[in-house]
Amino acid sequence: MLEINAAAIAEMDKIYRLNLINSITGYKSAQLIGTQNNAGATNLAVFSSVIHLGSNPPLIGFILRPTTVPRHTFANLKETGVFTLNHISAPHIEDAHHTSAKYPEDVSEFDQTQFTPIHKAGWKAPYVAEAPIQIGCRYLNEYHISENDTRLVVGQMEQLYLEEQLLGEDGWVQLDKGNIIAINGLDGYALPKLLARYPYARPKKD
Amino acid sequence: MLEINAAAIAEMDKIYRLNLINSITGYKSAQLIGTQNNAGATNLAVFSSVIHLGSNPPLIGFILRPTTVPRHTFANLKETGVFTLNHISAPHIEDAHHTSAKYPEDVSEFDQTQFTPIHKAGWKAPYVAEAPIQIGCRYLNEYHISENDTRLVVGQMEQLYLEEQLLGEDGWVQLDKGNIIAINGLDGYALPKLLARYPYARPKKD
Repeated sequence: MLEINAAAIAEMDKIYRLNLINSITGYKSAQLIGTQNNAGATNLAVFSSVIHLGSNPPLIGFILRPTTVPRHTFANLKETGVFTLNHISAPHIEDAHHTSAKYPEDVSEFDQTQFTPIHKAGWKAPYVAEAPIQIGCRYLNEYHISENDTRLVVGQMEQLYLEEQLLGEDGWVQLDKGNIIAINGLDGYALPKLLARYPYARPKKD
Repeated sequence: MLEINAAAIAEMDKIYRLNLINSITGYKSAQLIGTQNNAGATNLAVFSSVIHLGSNPPLIGFILRPTTVPRHTFANLKETGVFTLNHISAPHIEDAHHTSAKYPEDVSEFDQTQFTPIHKAGWKAPYVAEAPIQIGCRYLNEYHISENDTRLVVGQMEQLYLEEQLLGEDGWVQLDKGNIIAINGLDGYALPKLLARYPYARPKKD
């Protein structure tokens, strides 16, 4: 096996290290986060750092990098208190990736891609019509990660929308039925297929 | 589309909610975290909450649930200061899932599965020989998430081991070349295949 130590990582070219470190930690979920400001101007951006924090209450978190450049998503969700998570299916990966381009604040990524904003139940953030799973979240809190000046944003899921065929009898959502993708590093999009699902694990008997 | 609101989530049967909320947030990475105590007794447990925090320095985080039951992984990594992340490939998903069974502290999951512990470079945590990617991490810090009494553990990657065929010229690690899996919910294991990789996204010209 190849071995790469801490000194080698520290001395790497910046882009090489970005590629390596972002991909070596494994597959990540991919969501489009939809927001708007109080004037109704929308924003859409791909995130690969959304994590499950707990199921009761239903909490998620995601990581924001240092706010040294404008972060429209964060500014909007602080203004309205809400945001949406929208899963990406295989036919839409190129458009999803394009939402990471740095557009000025007055340009909506909805206008630069084929994604269609939809508004539901008075929620002050746009959902993505093409997403097989759409989740309305409320901002709860944020934690500053002092080691690298990032922040963990914590949100509560309040509204779930999903294609009926994805939902099993026991509440489990089978993601590959919606052709939902995962991210490999910063820019690789992969389509998973279910191999197996196992029952709750119990210790083996002697 | 199906719609599920906050009141419906709150009223769900506990297992149904666990299945739903853990799966609806999308695919998660899956790693076996290897630790040992100062006496050398090893522990191995599957985690699906490892996230990328930054590439310089190379930081990861993972979520620990409330310490109301013994958490051997956490006790060990606090004792030695280090742990390992080991990716799961498709042939090993059943054994990986079995590491979630609640064994007493004096039972090593390495003895209850086919996984082989290996020790490298004096690192006080076992690596998993069968893993195509193995990462030695040092514990740095932890953040208490007050909304649901979980904690975010922050670690720095210091030692990377990976199969040579996975590493591209630009540092990108192509995970599907190692048959590395992703998790769907608590107990579904899926095998992704790369669809596409895109260049750095730039705004479209008018």
